[in-house]
Amino acid sequence: MIKKIQIDDIVLLLSPDNKTFMVNIKEGKSFSSHLGMLDLTQAIGKSWGETIQSNLGNEFILMEPTVEDKLMKVRRLTQIVYPKDAALIIFKTGIRSGMKVIETGVGSGALTIALANSVAPEGKIYSYEKREEFIKNAADNIRYAGLIDYVEFFNRDARDGFDQTDVDVAIIDLPSPWYGIPSAYESLRGGGRIASISPTYNQVERSVQCMEDTGFVNIETLELILRNYQVKQGKTRPRDRMVGHTGFLTFARKAIAS
Amino acid sequence: MIKKIQIDDIVLLLSPDNKTFMVNIKEGKSFSSHLGMLDLTQAIGKSWGETIQSNLGNEFILMEPTVEDKLMKVRRLTQIVYPKDAALIIFKTGIRSGMKVIETGVGSGALTIALANSVAPEGKIYSYEKREEFIKNAADNIRYAGLIDYVEFFNRDARDGFDQTDVDVAIIDLPSPWYGIPSAYESLRGGGRIASISPTYNQVERSVQCMEDTGFVNIETLELILRNYQVKQGKTRPRDRMVGHTGFLTFARKAIAS
Amino acid sequence: MIKKIQIDDIVLLLSPDNKTFMVNIKEGKSFSSHLGMLDLTQAIGKSWGETIQSNLGNEFILMEPTVEDKLMKVRRLTQIVYPKDAALIIFKTGIRSGMKVIETGVGSGALTIALANSVAPEGKIYSYEKREEFIKNAADNIRYAGLIDYVEFFNRDARDGFDQTDVDVAIIDLPSPWYGIPSAYESLRGGGRIASISPTYNQVERSVQCMEDTGFVNIETLELILRNYQVKQGKTRPRDRMVGHTGFLTFARKAIAS
Amino acid sequence: MIKKIQIDDIVLLLSPDNKTFMVNIKEGKSFSSHLGMLDLTQAIGKSWGETIQSNLGNEFILMEPTVEDKLMKVRRLTQIVYPKDAALIIFKTGIRSGMKVIETGVGSGALTIALANSVAPEGKIYSYEKREEFIKNAADNIRYAGLIDYVEFFNRDARDGFDQTDVDVAIIDLPSPWYGIPSAYESLRGGGRIASISPTYNQVERSVQCMEDTGFVNIETLELILRNYQVKQGKTRPRDRMVGHTGFLTFARKAIAS
Repeated sequence: MIKKIQIDDIVLLLSPDNKTFMVNIKEGKSFSSHLGMLDLTQAIGKSWGETIQSNLGNEFILMEPTVEDKLMKVRRLTQIVYPKDAALIIFKTGIRSGMKVIETGVGSGALTIALANSVAPEGKIYSYEKREEFIKNAADNIRYAGLIDYVEFFNRDARDGFDQTDVDVAIIDLPSPWYGIPSAYESLRGGGRIASISPTYNQVERSVQCMEDTGFVNIETLELILRNYQVKQGKTRPRDRMVGHTGFLTFARKAIAS
Repeated sequence: MIKKIQIDDIVLLLSPDNKTFMVNIKEGKSFSSHLGMLDLTQAIGKSWGETIQSNLGNEFILMEPTVEDKLMKVRRLTQIVYPKDAALIIFKTGIRSGMKVIETGVGSGALTIALANSVAPEGKIYSYEKREEFIKNAADNIRYAGLIDYVEFFNRDARDGFDQTDVDVAIIDLPSPWYGIPSAYESLRGGGRIASISPTYNQVERSVQCMEDTGFVNIETLELILRNYQVKQGKTRPRDRMVGHTGFLTFARKAIAS
Repeated sequence: MIKKIQIDDIVLLLSPDNKTFMVNIKEGKSFSSHLGMLDLTQAIGKSWGETIQSNLGNEFILMEPTVEDKLMKVRRLTQIVYPKDAALIIFKTGIRSGMKVIETGVGSGALTIALANSVAPEGKIYSYEKREEFIKNAADNIRYAGLIDYVEFFNRDARDGFDQTDVDVAIIDLPSPWYGIPSAYESLRGGGRIASISPTYNQVERSVQCMEDTGFVNIETLELILRNYQVKQGKTRPRDRMVGHTGFLTFARKAIAS
Repeated sequence: MIKKIQIDDIVLLLSPDNKTFMVNIKEGKSFSSHLGMLDLTQAIGKSWGETIQSNLGNEFILMEPTVEDKLMKVRRLTQIVYPKDAALIIFKTGIRSGMKVIETGVGSGALTIALANSVAPEGKIYSYEKREEFIKNAADNIRYAGLIDYVEFFNRDARDGFDQTDVDVAIIDLPSPWYGIPSAYESLRGGGRIASISPTYNQVERSVQCMEDTGFVNIETLELILRNYQVKQGKTRPRDRMVGHTGFLTFARKAIAS
């Protein structure tokens, strides 16, 4: 049985010119686009992949948002962690359903959405953030993405330590990653993995030194560069513009002194 | 309660010079490395992150393999899908616990391991492959990774269609992706996502054309370039050697004609 | 004896906020910038590297334009060939003072400026272009750069052949490079080099095939990706934005059937 | 009149399988390749682009070496500056026939060959190098390339200053670039340009700081990444392997305090 779209569902609308809009379906609600007004009531009872029409006769396709869509549509107070980086962090740290993960700081909650999506329904993200306004905005974003049940917030500086022990993974996204690395070591189980995200090489150099001093091993630093392509018959090429840099990623595992 | 290492566990041994070896723990079994012989019986009852010693006095750290480790250690009959690409495929198609996913072909089973890890324990990977020897090798690799329960094989050419309907995601890794794209469309649910992996521009151009003709929308082609860094105090730099190209990734979603 | 700046010299003004402006020095001429009005008469008799002041008290440094500066400041009717690509084309084809070089088409004359600068004072660029308005604009740009004496224009389609024989190098920058490749072969001396610039892989594939069929050898295709860095104490990193693609470069040499 | 190949000419032999060999033509000399023995006397009187045969019947094409060929074929005692970087250094610093250029250190003389080729016949490269064995090897390489007349060596540490004044360009290729930057400032004419090559971020950060402190302006740091392509009908793609990093390039110009 394929699920039909219902009231309160979040839908990604795909326009004829390949733009996407994330909307919450409500009885009688409408959405105003560059291609006309859409009565969202039309969506109720439709299947994913079907279309609704704007008052100007343009067809919009009803798409189920992926975790990438949810991450990209957050309200941003900060630079966000991009899908390419979120995906590799989750993969390389081995995050999966049921795990306990510490994250600091929360930023705009974009990475938190990806992490929560991966640990649901049995796992939990413990998110430490010292700026209360960031927690408030991130919580709104995560709630809208339908993942708030898998996230617990702590309004605290990473230097003051984390309440959890034996967590599987710790993610450090701080201007001073070395504030969070020793606390992460304390909270991780043996063999637990850490990932750190930083835009500058100075942060990376000091983070790696801190990880070595703290007892982490198998330390690896890398960067992902994403290239988009224009694919058209006879005119296929890399696109003109690209994001030049998001951040360096550093990964390691916790060893236990014998 | 933290789990202790037991007989039959798969362990990633980390050597003092940062090399990794994947071993199966057995009573009385030993492992011969470049840094001496290791009696694996020592590992039983230890925690992840603790160490065992070789007969030459070198300490090896006992690490729990992540899905990345399992993927990288497969016996290869083919080029494998690398972690950076596997991670983004899973992320962008939204694969998660419980989903039904079609894959064709299986190659050496590296991507299959990543997919199976993501859909476990309730989901399933339906893997279509026309070369029987590839299925045999991939099944061995997936079994060793502990994920065989989540994979079902079909010894069949993708052109002959897939048995499943209403699957969430289809992954095409074929020399002629257009052999699998129409079959994937038939098997996907509305809004279901497709990903295709190809090394050449020519494959990409024809695949995108085929997706457009078949009824896929929101088509996007990209490439991930991974750069490794040497991080040392005062000597931090990109590494000299890198993989120049793995493949182009194309993503799309199934629309349903109204 | 170091030359002093004179009337009619072209000067690159460097503002305090690291912007550059190319101006022609004239008695009594002034230049209006975002940091005030500059009386250019001040520059006469100064040395390169010295400064002049705007009416708002901002100091501008008097720089001698390099060929890169001249190339980047052309009036553009077309996409230009960027310095990274122009530099490698000149280097790999071995263009140097005294050589005879054919170019088709001229575009906005940016590459022509670089080529003319390299062959001066004894060599010559023979530039074939079928659109008269491009020749006019390019000639203005090249004249302003002080290099018009080293360039001769031909208002002609590349398919109709070139008048010169025994030229050292031929540069093809056409939407259909295969229109120019056979003509280039005819005009090149034995061992002469060809370079072709194209944005799409389809053009590259067909160009390489055409070169092979025509009698070129040692064919090589490559691409240069330029990454800019922000370098600040403690905050060094790749810049956020970058040009994602300019073009593919193909190089080859003319063999003579024995 | 096209020049014929003569005794003592340096020739680049291109094998049927696209390998290149640089040889010096002598009466009665032979060259042993993986495709048979070549009697080089055959080459005398031939034109560039013509072929000679090995004793196994394989044809080798007689190519005139470009500056790139000469640079790549040096005997290496050190890491060399690659063509992509040499080309951009020459272009961005505006080096051309007749200029005076300081270089420190000489390494294996690869970059020196490129520089000498650009300033010949009227200009000169002043090469400062503290290790005598490097000068000896570089001089042999430069002499073989036919460019020794345009290079003058100084066996000296860059910190001890340079003898020349009013030079046009200074190139710094030192493990501690800040040893050469103040000396370069002293020797450059106003508006003269400096380029520095370094593999690590740490060197770049300190070099830029040193340039700012010394009086250089318009400072710019960048990196070139070269991607090679396999171009075959229907199988066109980036190559598997690539050089991951050669070095960062920093450029600046000398300002004169008013």
